Amino acid sequence: MSRIAEIRQNVLKKNDLLAAELRMRFTAAGVTVVNLVSSPGAGKTALLETTLRQLQPRYRVAALVGDLATDRDAQRLKRAASQVEQITTGTVCHLDAAMIAAAIHAWPLETIDFLFVENVGNLVCPASYDVGETMRAVLLSVTEGEDKPLKYPTIFNSADLAVLTKIDLADVVDFDRTAAHRNIHEVAPSLPICEVSTKSGVGMDAWRRRLEALRGAPSVESTGASA
Amino acid sequence: MSRIAEIRQNVLKKNDLLAAELRMRFTAAGVTVVNLVSSPGAGKTALLETTLRQLQPRYRVAALVGDLATDRDAQRLKRAASQVEQITTGTVCHLDAAMIAAAIHAWPLETIDFLFVENVGNLVCPASYDVGETMRAVLLSVTEGEDKPLKYPTIFNSADLAVLTKIDLADVVDFDRTAAHRNIHEVAPSLPICEVSTKSGVGMDAWRRRLEALRGAPSVESTGASA
Repeated sequence: MSRIAEIRQNVLKKNDLLAAELRMRFTAAGVTVVNLVSSPGAGKTALLETTLRQLQPRYRVAALVGDLATDRDAQRLKRAASQVEQITTGTVCHLDAAMIAAAIHAWPLETIDFLFVENVGNLVCPASYDVGETMRAVLLSVTEGEDKPLKYPTIFNSADLAVLTKIDLADVVDFDRTAAHRNIHEVAPSLPICEVSTKSGVGMDAWRRRLEALRGAPSVESTGASA
Repeated sequence: MSRIAEIRQNVLKKNDLLAAELRMRFTAAGVTVVNLVSSPGAGKTALLETTLRQLQPRYRVAALVGDLATDRDAQRLKRAASQVEQITTGTVCHLDAAMIAAAIHAWPLETIDFLFVENVGNLVCPASYDVGETMRAVLLSVTEGEDKPLKYPTIFNSADLAVLTKIDLADVVDFDRTAAHRNIHEVAPSLPICEVSTKSGVGMDAWRRRLEALRGAPSVESTGASA
């Protein structure tokens, strides 16, 4: 093994240990953690903004937002939730467990139901870094092209859910839905897929129900049906 | 300095040396090298495909295409140019000078006028790796949002040109052109910007003229005027 590969492996091993520790703390405190990964501009912040509003006041929500520079996303999300913190990574291409641990250091975890981690926009590096999440969701916007899962397989096959975003633009950009699903399943055979548009609202209820299911909560629909 | 930071700096130093060597070889052989960097799905391959067709047969063109997996882009580009090679990087998030050197090892450089390097889709890592290029062009598609230059400053302030792509979709996605230009110039004050759409053809002539100017060639327009 090359020197670089060896060091990289040690870094990843250390991260895995710290992430496992974090996961135990989150579980013990009853926090459901969702790690959102995608290319820059796939719509992580827009999805998160709508999701935070949808989940409140039923759930207590918080968010950590990663970017190389600026706190724009945190400022934007603060309009939707009070507990939001920006992590600026400088030139680092991903969030890791140590950054998450440092950011939540002073937070009373037992007051949080959902913690969303908006990762640095990058289809490569965040795939390798566990941050102690309950679910990793990879977003793919219809404007990026159906071939992306084949070209960036690791981030898809390490995810628990694929979310096709900006689905309202599908026709305008000639998005081939069948090809996208086929390509996702070629690299991640059993990965569930949902399709959303924060603009039109399509798919947002199904997305929310998936999140609630992570907490074992009954969905609003089934509650309605039994009422 | 931390151990990791130290090693990373050594890697970058080695890459810079190799890139300088490559640049000398390219210059001596008369090859103009254009390094295309962007997010996944910003339209690098589409721009490259159209560009290769536009430049031929006036110029002898070649391309190197980086992806983590698959040779789809190379296959696609081979329809537009004969000398195309795919570099698959596995889990590596960028192309570096050593990969370029290995890929062109057997190529007779003096038979090439333009060599295009399509980097791995990533707005972070490729910024740090010189590949011996004459010009680095960073693409930003209108669907990604105007804030990206502020969030990923390094890739913009290390580029020689910004190309706003998919400009035909600007209205559909409420793209704020003024804000995009302002944000680019906030992180890279004198960076020239061009706007293109491979779909409608808008801006493609101006882009081609910029490429030709790198070789000191008169543009088709000025040739036409003096004829």
